[in-house]
Parts: sequence; structure tokens; C-alpha cells
Amino acid sequence: MNPVLEAIPGSLIRALNALKRPGDIDLGMGEPTIRPALRPFELAAAQIAAHGCPYTPNAGDPALRAAIAARYACRPEQVCVTVGSQEALWLAIKAMLDPAADELLIISPAYPAYAKIAQLEGVACREVGLDPATGFAPDAARVLAAIGPRTRMVLLATPANPTGRVWPDDQLDRLAEGLQALGDARPWVLVDEVYRELVYLTPRPRPFAARYDRTLVTNSLSKSHALTGLRLGWLLGPEAAIAAAVKAHQFVNTAASTFSQHVAHAIMTGDEPLDAQRPHYEAQRAALLAQLASLGLRHVPPDGAFYCMVQLPDRWAADSVACAHALLDAERVVTVPGAAFGAEGWLRLSWVAERAQLAAGLDRVARFLRG
Amino acid sequence: MNPVLEAIPGSLIRALNALKRPGDIDLGMGEPTIRPALRPFELAAAQIAAHGCPYTPNAGDPALRAAIAARYACRPEQVCVTVGSQEALWLAIKAMLDPAADELLIISPAYPAYAKIAQLEGVACREVGLDPATGFAPDAARVLAAIGPRTRMVLLATPANPTGRVWPDDQLDRLAEGLQALGDARPWVLVDEVYRELVYLTPRPRPFAARYDRTLVTNSLSKSHALTGLRLGWLLGPEAAIAAAVKAHQFVNTAASTFSQHVAHAIMTGDEPLDAQRPHYEAQRAALLAQLASLGLRHVPPDGAFYCMVQLPDRWAADSVACAHALLDAERVVTVPGAAFGAEGWLRLSWVAERAQLAAGLDRVARFLRG
Repeated sequence: MNPVLEAIPGSLIRALNALKRPGDIDLGMGEPTIRPALRPFELAAAQIAAHGCPYTPNAGDPALRAAIAARYACRPEQVCVTVGSQEALWLAIKAMLDPAADELLIISPAYPAYAKIAQLEGVACREVGLDPATGFAPDAARVLAAIGPRTRMVLLATPANPTGRVWPDDQLDRLAEGLQALGDARPWVLVDEVYRELVYLTPRPRPFAARYDRTLVTNSLSKSHALTGLRLGWLLGPEAAIAAAVKAHQFVNTAASTFSQHVAHAIMTGDEPLDAQRPHYEAQRAALLAQLASLGLRHVPPDGAFYCMVQLPDRWAADSVACAHALLDAERVVTVPGAAFGAEGWLRLSWVAERAQLAAGLDRVARFLRG
Repeated sequence: MNPVLEAIPGSLIRALNALKRPGDIDLGMGEPTIRPALRPFELAAAQIAAHGCPYTPNAGDPALRAAIAARYACRPEQVCVTVGSQEALWLAIKAMLDPAADELLIISPAYPAYAKIAQLEGVACREVGLDPATGFAPDAARVLAAIGPRTRMVLLATPANPTGRVWPDDQLDRLAEGLQALGDARPWVLVDEVYRELVYLTPRPRPFAARYDRTLVTNSLSKSHALTGLRLGWLLGPEAAIAAAVKAHQFVNTAASTFSQHVAHAIMTGDEPLDAQRPHYEAQRAALLAQLASLGLRHVPPDGAFYCMVQLPDRWAADSVACAHALLDAERVVTVPGAAFGAEGWLRLSWVAERAQLAAGLDRVARFLRG
């Protein structure tokens, strides 16, 4: 057996989820509860009826690559269609980093799979932590100060999971300028934009890729369109980087599902804006923030995505894992311990549940934490 | 950039395919031309309409795992649902082999991705060649003699791509016995069964997994159901091996497409036998063999799959790549050079094309080789 697999710890998110019983309130997984539109599935089915279900080229259906490129104002050759943004993250790390020499710098708190992918691929990995005292505010100076001689990629999520923070224009500018000053030694920036369509700031910051040349971007339809099971995402970047990624992609799965690519094509060329589901989450967020304020729970107000970090009282601050388990036992509410993301002393609440479930869940969390 | 990617040569199959022009005859790609049944897609669409399109568990929808397990007479915990058999191959090599110590032994001629996956994952790889003079006949003694102290996995394809040879019961028995005699040092056998439903021998040999404990099996619906674009396959093996594979699987793509899993569930629990398309290929094969005989082309009669190896005349025997290009230029027929599979001096013909196209293509190949 490959010893790196044994060394990778299991998922705390899925471990808590596995303890969920019928009737429990789920503020754990980032799985939208609203239903996806069915019209794109009907259009995809018509394509299958007309043309069968053959392979697409490895990099994706040319029509879909063109549609994604049009949305991002780039060329189709800069797009690799992937099996969700999970594969896009894996591809970027696998294709762009040399395990013998390079280091990945992760801005934490962060989605735990980033570090685990690096571990799986034998790539050195270091974290630079944002300051809990500022609510994990984006901080270009901290990130720039953490870059070392081996740093070949910086992983930036905006909106960020678990904090919901969105990097504002001024911080993105500062980061791009600081990196550009490193000249030929400047690292890649891998921007995880999977919550791109769920930004509640106005105006929305301009994308980082417009500011910095060595940028790779991952995204998918999972979160914006309640299509986590579609497994359809993309990796964007300079053509040479995408060509390298496509090479790894073909060996790991040949290509993404042709049916899923048809669904994505219908969405990307359809009349609806990609953020059509945002108003639903804006209303949900307003209800969340009002209830958190009335309950007196200390939290980070999310600028984007559909998570909220709640600060634990002193008696739980050193052990968010124990807290999440005790909360589940006592109140039957699933949450995710901050420790899963490198943020001990916090609890991540997902607020995708139906409104009444969310309200009941928050009441129970508050009751438990007041203890 | 990861230097291993630059070192992996490009695909000869796709390189020839990229030169194809409208009107050319395609005897190259292994892409079925018959149309898939639409009923499983309708059933899958109904599932999406009723339940949305959420993630399944990493290892796959429990109902699909159970349906696959029932077909293979194993337990659901022995099944990991994958993005085609391509991902299943990658997972098996990634999860089971230690790049620092282990070697993969490939029985050649072989599907070129086997060696490239090993190269991508830094796993040492060696080939044991079957004898062209016997038409690449399965030969357990040769394989056993090639096993070295570092060999931790043997890759066995039956039916084999590109030769179409099927391992018969006596050779499978001899291989299993020889491996079992190695005791604790016995390697894994990864059986690529992607053409399992397309076997033209009667009776069909019993599966290798029934004879040998350290067996992993890959398969998919791509070839048996004309669903290459569904990207739905599976890896089977002992529970501990599957648990390790699922761990790697979650980081590379989370899970297979939920829609594709619904399609697969409809097929695996449906009334039709899994080899319902075999009669189509049997008729196609009979026409192929009759025409090859009348044309006087030296070839290996396929026991399974939908390929046929044709031996090149002396003037082309040292350069099948040049031959395939010259054939394409002169006669507008796409084929794959044997060199792509480690079988210099041969040409692989795929016989999935419509009957009239296949017949015309074979005439042209014969005319060209007669020169």
C-alpha cells in the first residue's frame, strides 16, 4: 500500500456527518438544499438522444470550453473541464508543482483538502494564518511575508471556506503588486472561486486573474447551481499550464461526463445570470445575522459563501472537536469543528438548511454554548 | 511545473485521431458507434427531478454499490464507484503501490496508459512481452518468470487491448497457482476487465478474482453499453484495499457524477443482461474475419473486445508509426500503430465502425499494405 495514504488523516467533516441520525439538524455539510433547475437536464438528455454518449476530448467539449471562456473573457485553450473543482484543485497542484523542490503556501483557515492533496502528491506545504482577532480578515502583507524561497504556489480562496471572507480590491491589489515584485521567482496563485457567485459585497471585487499573470482559477457549478452531484468544474490559466493539467487529467479520468458537460453548456449559454440563486442566500444570510445578533453569538459576518464561523466560549476554546461532538450528542445539531480548518476555538456553521431548520439549529447551538 | 509530466510522451492514438479529416474512415479509436439505450437516462432524470443532484458518498451511491456487488457476487464494501475505468486504474496504482519500493509488471502489448499512470505516480514499471509468433497468446509461465523481488502488482487485461486475446481457464489457473506459491510476497493482480462483456469464446472463462485473493478488478459501462462519455466505472477488491482507494478518490474528484450513477443503477438492476450488445459485435466480428481471410491479411483473430492486430509486411515492420501515417495520407484510414502498445510491426484496427465503413476501410488497408 502507498504509505502516504495511511498518513493522511480522515475527514472531520465527514466523520461528524457520519454520526448524523434521522431528525438531526444539519449545519455541517456545504450541500445546498434548494433544488436545481431541470431545464438544463432536459436539454442534455436531448443531446444524448440525438448524438449518443461518446467521450469528449480530454480537455472538454469544445462548445463548453468556449462557453466558459466567454464567461471569463479568456480563450478556450485556457480552460480544462474537470470533475468538479475538487479535480481542478488536484490537477493544479499535481501539474504545476515539483515535489522535489516546490512548496505550497496555504492561507488558513482553509478547506482541509488543500493540504491533504499536497500530502497525497508529496508536495511540501506550509500555512500562513489570518488573524482571528480581525475575524480572519484578508491580509496581503501577512501572506507576502510568509513567502519563502521554495514557495511556488499560493492557495487563495475567495470567498473563503470556512470564514466566508471575501478578498477586497485593495488587498488583492497589494498581493498582486507584492508578488509581481518577486520577478521570475514569483509563485503561481491558485484561486479557489467555487463560491464566486455567492458574494454579498457590492460592488463585487474584480477577479485576481485580471491583476496577476501567474494565476490559476478553479470553479464549478456545485455551489452556485445546487449541483454538487454534477461533478462538473473547470481549471483556468495560461495555455501552457492548462496543457500540462490536461495531460494529468487524461490519466486520472480521461474526461468529465459528457452528460454533465451538456448540462453545464446549457447553463453557461442560458439566459439566466450565473448568480441567479444569490438572492436566496442573501435572504438566508439576513435571517442568520439577525438571529445571531439576538442570540448574542460571537461570529464573523460572512461576505460570501454560505458558512459562518462562531467563536467558542472559553470552556470549549481549546477543543472544537469535543465541542462539536458534545453539541451533536446534547442538541442533535451537526456542525464542523474549526480545528478541521486550522481554526481551533471556532465552529463552522453551514446555513444552507431550510429556514425553519436553520433557526431551530441556531437556537440549539446558542443554548448549548451558553451551557 | 511537475517534471514528470514533461517526461510522459503524448498519446499516439490521439495524435493519429487528431489528423482525421471529415470523410476519413476511422478504424482507430475504441469508441462504439452503436447508440446507447435511452431508458436508463430517463430513469436517471426522474431521480434528479425527485431528489435534486446532491453528492453521493465518496465511494458511490450505496444502492449502486450494492447492485454492482450483486453482479460480481461480492460485498458492497468491496466496490468503489469511479469516473470510468481510467480512474479505477489510476486509483489502484496510486493506492496500492509505494513509489519508494514497488514495481508494476505490465503484460504487453498493453493499453499505453498503464505505463504512463505508473510514470505519473513515480512507480517503477517493467514489461513482460507475450510472443508475437503465437499471436500474443496468454502465457502464465512467461509472466511468472518475469516477476522480480520488487514486483508488487501485475497488470492483466482480459480481453486484452490491443490483441483481443482472452486468458483461458488453464492459463488463469496456472498464473494463480504460481503467484500463490510466492506466499506473503505474492503481488496484487490488477485485472482490467473493461471488455468483460465482449468475449466470443464459449464457455467464457471464470473470473480471475475467484482464483486468487490479492485481485483488484476494474470495469465500466463504456465499452459494454456504448457509454464512453458516461465516465462511470468501478474498482473491486478486498475491503482494506478499497478503503485505501476511496481515500485517494475523494481527493482527486470527491465522487462520480450522481446522474451517471443513477444511469448505472438503472442498467445494473435492469432486466437486460450486461452483454446485450455482444451479438452486435459477434456479427461484426464474423464479417471482419471473413473479409480479412479473403484479403489475405495476416492477423490475430480476436477472442474478445473489438480490436484486431494486423501484421505488417516486411517493409513496414520496423516502423508502424510511419506506416499508420502513410496509410492515413494515402487511403484516409485512421488506425493505431502497434508501437503505441509495445508491439512494433503491427497495426491495431478497431472494428466498431458501421459495417460498410469497416468493409471499405479493410479494403483500403489491404490495398495499402500490398503496396
